[in-house]
Amino acid sequence: MKGGVAGSGRERITLRVALGPRSYPIELGRGTLAGAGAAIAHHTGARQAVIVSVPPVARRYAAELARSLRAAGMRVHRIEVPDGDRSKSLGQVARLYDAFLECGIDRASAVVALGGGMVGDLAGFAAASFLRGLPFVQVPTSVLAMVDSSIGGKVGVNLPQGKNLVGAFHQPRLVWIDVAVLRSLPVRQRAAGFAEVIKAGALWDARFFALLEREAESLVRLESPELLGVLARACAIKAEIVRRDERETGVRMLLNFGHTLAHAVEALTGYRRVLHGEAVAMGMVFAARRSEQLGLGAPGTALRLEALLRRVGLPTELPRLPRSAYLEALRVDKKRRDARIHYVVLRRIGRSETVPLTPAEILPREPRAARRRAPRPGRRRT
Amino acid sequence: MKGGVAGSGRERITLRVALGPRSYPIELGRGTLAGAGAAIAHHTGARQAVIVSVPPVARRYAAELARSLRAAGMRVHRIEVPDGDRSKSLGQVARLYDAFLECGIDRASAVVALGGGMVGDLAGFAAASFLRGLPFVQVPTSVLAMVDSSIGGKVGVNLPQGKNLVGAFHQPRLVWIDVAVLRSLPVRQRAAGFAEVIKAGALWDARFFALLEREAESLVRLESPELLGVLARACAIKAEIVRRDERETGVRMLLNFGHTLAHAVEALTGYRRVLHGEAVAMGMVFAARRSEQLGLGAPGTALRLEALLRRVGLPTELPRLPRSAYLEALRVDKKRRDARIHYVVLRRIGRSETVPLTPAEILPREPRAARRRAPRPGRRRT
Repeated sequence: MKGGVAGSGRERITLRVALGPRSYPIELGRGTLAGAGAAIAHHTGARQAVIVSVPPVARRYAAELARSLRAAGMRVHRIEVPDGDRSKSLGQVARLYDAFLECGIDRASAVVALGGGMVGDLAGFAAASFLRGLPFVQVPTSVLAMVDSSIGGKVGVNLPQGKNLVGAFHQPRLVWIDVAVLRSLPVRQRAAGFAEVIKAGALWDARFFALLEREAESLVRLESPELLGVLARACAIKAEIVRRDERETGVRMLLNFGHTLAHAVEALTGYRRVLHGEAVAMGMVFAARRSEQLGLGAPGTALRLEALLRRVGLPTELPRLPRSAYLEALRVDKKRRDARIHYVVLRRIGRSETVPLTPAEILPREPRAARRRAPRPGRRRT
Repeated sequence: MKGGVAGSGRERITLRVALGPRSYPIELGRGTLAGAGAAIAHHTGARQAVIVSVPPVARRYAAELARSLRAAGMRVHRIEVPDGDRSKSLGQVARLYDAFLECGIDRASAVVALGGGMVGDLAGFAAASFLRGLPFVQVPTSVLAMVDSSIGGKVGVNLPQGKNLVGAFHQPRLVWIDVAVLRSLPVRQRAAGFAEVIKAGALWDARFFALLEREAESLVRLESPELLGVLARACAIKAEIVRRDERETGVRMLLNFGHTLAHAVEALTGYRRVLHGEAVAMGMVFAARRSEQLGLGAPGTALRLEALLRRVGLPTELPRLPRSAYLEALRVDKKRRDARIHYVVLRRIGRSETVPLTPAEILPREPRAARRRAPRPGRRRT
């Protein structure tokens, strides 16, 4: 699948996440929301559905989705959670459980997440844990959720101490993507989502990255004829990596490119002010620079990545906070295994690998001095 | 495995729960607690362990278990939760997450549940969800936990609205059973645990049931030479059923024999006063009688089951509460699929099956009148 060509002009694309008995399709299209109900009924076998969403998304799309579910013969319930990443909490999970009980949700019911990454992660964790697991469907409405968080089964919530510290692997039965809904997404959110699209190209597919360089501004404006194909290619990269390593014991760790520092930034700013994609953009540029400093990345890689991120309107510099604050934030990062973190370095555009590094090695006291220090042998991993 | 003979006099028995990549051993022995550490290190590969327990158990056994873990080269942390089923709550799960973070628990850490069913279910759910899943070990210290709740990967907590409404399937890496610890278990708790042993015989293995009839009183007094073999046989039945149906879509439902009404009793008495095994004893006798009333159970089966349960000191009559209260409690039972419950009926000793029944059919307004009513055709299941 690596190096596949992005589609051009097609209005429906079907991908498949190949995970044996947990396999599922990703259906991309334009103006296809009204078709979701029949597909959801088909792929879940459920007789009722509960749509979990946030007010701004629900206002626009929940009625249409509910209609299509009813047309497919399902009873439909709707639950709204407050907008914003702060809702990705144990408290909101408990509220969802209560709402599920009030709706009479049983094992023949599907949970349908209609929204961005927060909604998918939160509703997905509730679906994973209520009655020990209900059928789950993702209807992502943000770029980020479409290409990243809705695919691969990682669901969960944050704790006050850090992001995604609690969760499960719970694959959806279907991911239904209607790119028409992106029109109503604020441009800042769109740009943040493209951070994950760019990440997919940077860590996996240099040709795809070059396509993004050709189309950057028009993609964010949703005017590029390549839009559907670009989103599909980003989905396909994610699907391929998940297929190879569902439980993140190897290659899937590459998807954390930029995320180690991104999680620290988000924790340190209280999950406000900085969007996840923005934090990822900062974290990726930091990681690409650090890769070059460690002699692991080809010179100029960070600059090229930074330039593309800037063109889609993303920030690329970490907030100025004390090093000690970042170190403390890394200490609770869940990817830590003993003292070392599987840190993703960028060898060049299209090729990444993980290296076990301590927080202090990721964030050296004097970054410039580190440039000449070669990494210790025997500590690299691919 | 069905119909296997219980061991006699052996002091170590190893069983295996065969679940492909999630397979694990059950090690039964007498006075073997000091050997747990090496086995836990071997089966988890973890470099640190957190023992989760309750005060009365921790006081007796946590130090010895911690010593054996340290002797195996592991860092050890200890966490205690309040005793009693009320600790099986979302609030206590959140407390465990906090404690895990304070201990610096990472993915190379094992969660070790030392205690009865509550501890195993609670610690197991925390292990299943923290960092999306940590290696988990069961060191059960009650009869009930040894033969039932520690095997099969069902973990979870209660909600105020009902039992086990939230949870996961998270198989342990090892179940370590030292029957010597049962000496310190109050006799009422022991008897309650034997309800699940008797359940295993009643639903699966008539020869085993007959052995229990020969040894009943001496088993509860822990004086029977068959004790280790009896516990191993009950474990083996559970392991075999779990092997055939890990996710409870078929034969595993049989393990719910007696549990539909048991959960209702527990919910209606606020998870106090009545022990789980006592509630199961009541629920089994109710189910066996109802099976006969429906023409599905051989006459006399309920009486035989009731007699054995009474000999080990268990109650067999449901608390006198309004039928409406029981019906309401069944409505939120998690086994409900639409309006019907997969209710386990007892055909005869050693043979059970599920029948989809509505709450009203399980609890008819006039039970005596129902005796002559044959079940509607086409609604049985095996």
